[in-house]
Amino acid sequence: MERCCPLTGVGSRGDVPRDIDQILMPALALNPDRLFPASAEKRAIARRLYVQVADLPIISPHGHTDPAWFAGNDPFLNATELLLTPDHYLFRMLCSQGVELDTLGVPRADGSVSLSDPRAAWRLFADHWHLFRGTPSRMWLDWVFVNVFGFTQILSSETADNFYDSINEKLSTDAFKPRALFERFNIEVLTTTESPLDALEHHQTINESAWAGRVLTAYRPDPVVDPEFDGFRDNVIELGELTGEDTSTWRGYLNAHRARRDFFRQVGATSTDHGHPSCRTADLTADEARDLFRRVLADAPTAEDAELFRAQMLTEMAAMSVDDGLVMQIHPGSFRNHNAKVLGEFGRDKGFDIPMQTDYVHGLKPLLDRFGMNKHLSVIVFTLDETSYSRELAPMAGVYPTLKLGPAWWFHDSPEGMRRFRQMTTETAGFYNTVGFNDDTRAFLSIPARHDVARRVDCAFLSELVSDHRLGEEEAAEIAMLLTYELPKQAYKLDSQS
Amino acid sequence: MERCCPLTGVGSRGDVPRDIDQILMPALALNPDRLFPASAEKRAIARRLYVQVADLPIISPHGHTDPAWFAGNDPFLNATELLLTPDHYLFRMLCSQGVELDTLGVPRADGSVSLSDPRAAWRLFADHWHLFRGTPSRMWLDWVFVNVFGFTQILSSETADNFYDSINEKLSTDAFKPRALFERFNIEVLTTTESPLDALEHHQTINESAWAGRVLTAYRPDPVVDPEFDGFRDNVIELGELTGEDTSTWRGYLNAHRARRDFFRQVGATSTDHGHPSCRTADLTADEARDLFRRVLADAPTAEDAELFRAQMLTEMAAMSVDDGLVMQIHPGSFRNHNAKVLGEFGRDKGFDIPMQTDYVHGLKPLLDRFGMNKHLSVIVFTLDETSYSRELAPMAGVYPTLKLGPAWWFHDSPEGMRRFRQMTTETAGFYNTVGFNDDTRAFLSIPARHDVARRVDCAFLSELVSDHRLGEEEAAEIAMLLTYELPKQAYKLDSQS
Amino acid sequence: MERCCPLTGVGSRGDVPRDIDQILMPALALNPDRLFPASAEKRAIARRLYVQVADLPIISPHGHTDPAWFAGNDPFLNATELLLTPDHYLFRMLCSQGVELDTLGVPRADGSVSLSDPRAAWRLFADHWHLFRGTPSRMWLDWVFVNVFGFTQILSSETADNFYDSINEKLSTDAFKPRALFERFNIEVLTTTESPLDALEHHQTINESAWAGRVLTAYRPDPVVDPEFDGFRDNVIELGELTGEDTSTWRGYLNAHRARRDFFRQVGATSTDHGHPSCRTADLTADEARDLFRRVLADAPTAEDAELFRAQMLTEMAAMSVDDGLVMQIHPGSFRNHNAKVLGEFGRDKGFDIPMQTDYVHGLKPLLDRFGMNKHLSVIVFTLDETSYSRELAPMAGVYPTLKLGPAWWFHDSPEGMRRFRQMTTETAGFYNTVGFNDDTRAFLSIPARHDVARRVDCAFLSELVSDHRLGEEEAAEIAMLLTYELPKQAYKLDSQS
Repeated sequence: MERCCPLTGVGSRGDVPRDIDQILMPALALNPDRLFPASAEKRAIARRLYVQVADLPIISPHGHTDPAWFAGNDPFLNATELLLTPDHYLFRMLCSQGVELDTLGVPRADGSVSLSDPRAAWRLFADHWHLFRGTPSRMWLDWVFVNVFGFTQILSSETADNFYDSINEKLSTDAFKPRALFERFNIEVLTTTESPLDALEHHQTINESAWAGRVLTAYRPDPVVDPEFDGFRDNVIELGELTGEDTSTWRGYLNAHRARRDFFRQVGATSTDHGHPSCRTADLTADEARDLFRRVLADAPTAEDAELFRAQMLTEMAAMSVDDGLVMQIHPGSFRNHNAKVLGEFGRDKGFDIPMQTDYVHGLKPLLDRFGMNKHLSVIVFTLDETSYSRELAPMAGVYPTLKLGPAWWFHDSPEGMRRFRQMTTETAGFYNTVGFNDDTRAFLSIPARHDVARRVDCAFLSELVSDHRLGEEEAAEIAMLLTYELPKQAYKLDSQS
Repeated sequence: MERCCPLTGVGSRGDVPRDIDQILMPALALNPDRLFPASAEKRAIARRLYVQVADLPIISPHGHTDPAWFAGNDPFLNATELLLTPDHYLFRMLCSQGVELDTLGVPRADGSVSLSDPRAAWRLFADHWHLFRGTPSRMWLDWVFVNVFGFTQILSSETADNFYDSINEKLSTDAFKPRALFERFNIEVLTTTESPLDALEHHQTINESAWAGRVLTAYRPDPVVDPEFDGFRDNVIELGELTGEDTSTWRGYLNAHRARRDFFRQVGATSTDHGHPSCRTADLTADEARDLFRRVLADAPTAEDAELFRAQMLTEMAAMSVDDGLVMQIHPGSFRNHNAKVLGEFGRDKGFDIPMQTDYVHGLKPLLDRFGMNKHLSVIVFTLDETSYSRELAPMAGVYPTLKLGPAWWFHDSPEGMRRFRQMTTETAGFYNTVGFNDDTRAFLSIPARHDVARRVDCAFLSELVSDHRLGEEEAAEIAMLLTYELPKQAYKLDSQS
Repeated sequence: MERCCPLTGVGSRGDVPRDIDQILMPALALNPDRLFPASAEKRAIARRLYVQVADLPIISPHGHTDPAWFAGNDPFLNATELLLTPDHYLFRMLCSQGVELDTLGVPRADGSVSLSDPRAAWRLFADHWHLFRGTPSRMWLDWVFVNVFGFTQILSSETADNFYDSINEKLSTDAFKPRALFERFNIEVLTTTESPLDALEHHQTINESAWAGRVLTAYRPDPVVDPEFDGFRDNVIELGELTGEDTSTWRGYLNAHRARRDFFRQVGATSTDHGHPSCRTADLTADEARDLFRRVLADAPTAEDAELFRAQMLTEMAAMSVDDGLVMQIHPGSFRNHNAKVLGEFGRDKGFDIPMQTDYVHGLKPLLDRFGMNKHLSVIVFTLDETSYSRELAPMAGVYPTLKLGPAWWFHDSPEGMRRFRQMTTETAGFYNTVGFNDDTRAFLSIPARHDVARRVDCAFLSELVSDHRLGEEEAAEIAMLLTYELPKQAYKLDSQS
């Protein structure tokens, strides 16, 4: 059932002249003032601030791109597999309007692909491009279409084939290989996230190569600290094999973490990352923790034991960070894989991760009671629950030396979302307890687009403070630089080349 | 105790010259640019968008007006009984400042009316008109005063009698009878809500009449699905009598629902509506459901059983909608009749319904696990808990084909409320997963005023996206049309005349 | 570890020329249009509204200044002890960036001060002044620096000594003594909060003095109604000794409250204040209450008993207010002293109070069922959980005659916080169910600065309603006056001189 198309006057493809040069297509262009305030006074301030940060290198200290791209530097295959199928922001919206994931070429849980014609998938995407009006995906992709591929017409059913062919043609050239794009995007450092079980071969390949690009890893231990993760017990066994530790014991398990963290650090990691359902932490005695570990290794731990173990492991990870200096990131509050049917058929990460209420005040207290005043620990907290910005996170980051606020995340990595983040955190936490922008993307080409949106929104926000006489323009310029470049480098300890 | 009047300089009525023509009264007029942005650039865009939708027919697919008005077409009685006593937005505000409900002629639970002088009630209302400054009620009523009744002075203690007499005079003329106003308001379709026990005689009268006005019903089964509803068990028995089913059995009870839904559909219904305290759903086995039904039919079910039964019935209603095509509306999250004293003395619906936190992520999961990917089911979800807009509802509507977001509802049917709705849902759910505007009113005359506010606020919001270069103006015009007219017709399946 | 300074280019002090006249320092000035909208139209309206309220006397009906200042009228000691060490807004932000509380001269729990050089503390504060960019503390202190002390350069490492010496010099003069500043600030009435165990000697001294300044107390019974308060049981015994009641009995305990409330009223109090962790209320039978009181007086009551007792005491206080007319303030929702280490080392009130979710719908119901419709009771509710503004508090204040909304509080006493308060409460509760502005400060010099910010933000908000044609400008002027002066006097029953 096609629900929306009748409303947009899109006819069936057969009606469309194939020679699109013969008809007038809506033009695509990026206005240089986009996202700046309408008031002439504020807009002028925003422009002056923006020119000072627009061309700064990109610091991308957290994300989910594939290091294999930069290790192998093979050309990307085609428009669909580069831009559409890995991007859950895109296929979730299509799904919401009744487009079957199968028809987009999204792989099933068993690895099969029902409909594997990437051109057909691209056409379907183009037919539904209007769905993205008002969304950040639209802004990011328009940026990519203009600045990476040079298009001058908007994507539509009529231009779909032209886009598809033209993108594929460019992707086959050297200028569009991963490393070339990395350099063209002016990326100073890019961080990916890997499981403790990962051999980090791609990062090692990059490190050992002559290429100067800096691609770091981050230690993401969810598969071996979350008893509800697929294959948890096997993962813990594998962790033991990798490290030579007896991970059937609590002591051996912790030692194995220490060993893998050391290995990650040697390969370049400066941070860890933790994606738990809640931000609950715990500070059990060694005996309690040992007993709990024994229980979660047994068959089918209770939900409460699983949650308590994750909670305890956040505190254990903090303790290790005090020792080895890795910056700790906590990304809590998503109900993963919300739909049972989609999880069964397509597996994880199919756009069905839904935010939940998150209680940071009680959740983080055990960790903060133990380490919150420790200046050797740095914990960056993110949220999907915007109600916590002004109520909990800004007050906590505004007093605990250990805590910093991660930027507007995921669904809130958007113009309105970023504005709300600044409006609701700045007055209580200031700018200096935030860490600048992270893109957190799987979509490599969107990185510069996302950073551009963030720089524009921050400059627009600062222009309001200046216009309101809450801040001098010179101070605002200093802060724009800070948010764009200095804070992320400092917060993620990226100052020295690895 | 009159609390506010000393502040506004209103003297006792005796001090006021009765001939109001002799003194200068503040003028009442509606500025054509009301609710548009102050920036000249944005205001010009908003104007251009608004003229394209200002005169479109009104689609009012959800509300609580009385179908008897349009069946009988009798004149409305007087200003007080038309505008004041049925409108809890008005008398609740007066109550908050110490005006007794009795003195406004609000009927008591036993049906008695303590003070039944409608002119005195109107004067009391006029004396307190300043309380509504900054509220949507003020905007709606000013629209009615100007556009329906042609007043040019503001309502006040001094003009109260003039308003009262003039309104009553007009109400007695043919041009102000219900059907004439319906046509004058350019209402294309208006939906009311009725209990399954309702005979729908007024709707049938309208259908069988020569009048072309389209007044639909919606199936609102709360009285027979909520074990805590007054007279629940009697209602279930009556449901059996109406349908010839044995509603003391689970199977007979479900069959009776099916029969009444069929009847409602035959009379024109395209939707159902569900006003539960929470949005909890359940998907019990048939045996569990049967046992639960038995328990809630017995004396005094537990609160948990009552809640679980409502939860199960939402899923049962969804299952029936898959079969019969009725669109399902869920309006959860109100603590009804919050004050025990007022409930005892005046009964339900006296302005003491207070919103509560609502958890859609866990609440809707059982229903969505079963039907969330079913393209034959359409569920429109509303909320009184704005925190769920960006955290839960937009992410869920942005991926589930079954879900659509209802507009800003009840207390949020207001300029700031609508703006927050768009700001917090658009980036994640887009425009196409929303359903345009519903007025949800009991106050018939406010319908065009409310739709006008919604059209203005949407055009103002769109003008910001255009001014920010997030959207082209032609696209914005298409969306303004969509939100005003196309989406509600489509979402409520109103395309074909009944 | 100094984290931020490298980013701001602040060198070590040794590098700075001591003669600051030789170098150009950034100028400090307060723009007359600060906090007004950028749009010329709105700005003009805001200016016109503001001039009508800018010079009105200050009504400060709730705060935590020290009545001893006005009783003794001794000069303040120095800049650090006047402005820095009592202000948790300031030292919490320094703490968040790794500055040790000891180095600021914040006293330890045992009363000792590790580093007691106030000049060094002031320098440290000045070195970190950039941290306050974008915060209300910055606006307040800049106002104080300009309008109280006449500075024309911004505070910085370079100007720190100049500020320190100049402030201290002024503080030693008569014009900067507490009473002189009180008069210069045009304070009409200032209220402090005291424990029932307080002898109110300073208030009595003021009352008996020739000085005309009006400094009231408010009855803050937390130390004797909260079983988890330090020394609760001793406090209850002391309450008995003060009043000659047997406070080991429920009846004697309640009588002791009545006696102290009478005493407070005689000394001038018009209100009580309650700072509970939650807003839970209860309405137990007399027998249940008596048993509960017995349990909480015994050793180590359970957390549930402690919470239930606080809940019951809110309702008991309401009952007494019905009798004696004291206005009741409820300030719930803070997790006090969140960090165990800081609480142990430094004690209470060290900036580690973190807001929590608060449920007013269920919490207040028992009290409101009993007294919510009683026009002899006035309850002013505050919140730190902004999600409750539009969802719970505005709907409740918009119908209950007993309830009024306190202004944006604590972390939300800020330009963005106040704007959100008005945007989220006005449409449902109107202006007349709010109580104007309270500063709630411990920092005496910030009082006029805070009131100025509130007046500006309210005028800016009103200018938007006028510009949007939601309100006439004359009405807006009336409301500006109301919010600034009339409502707080009325809500706190301050109309008659004590």
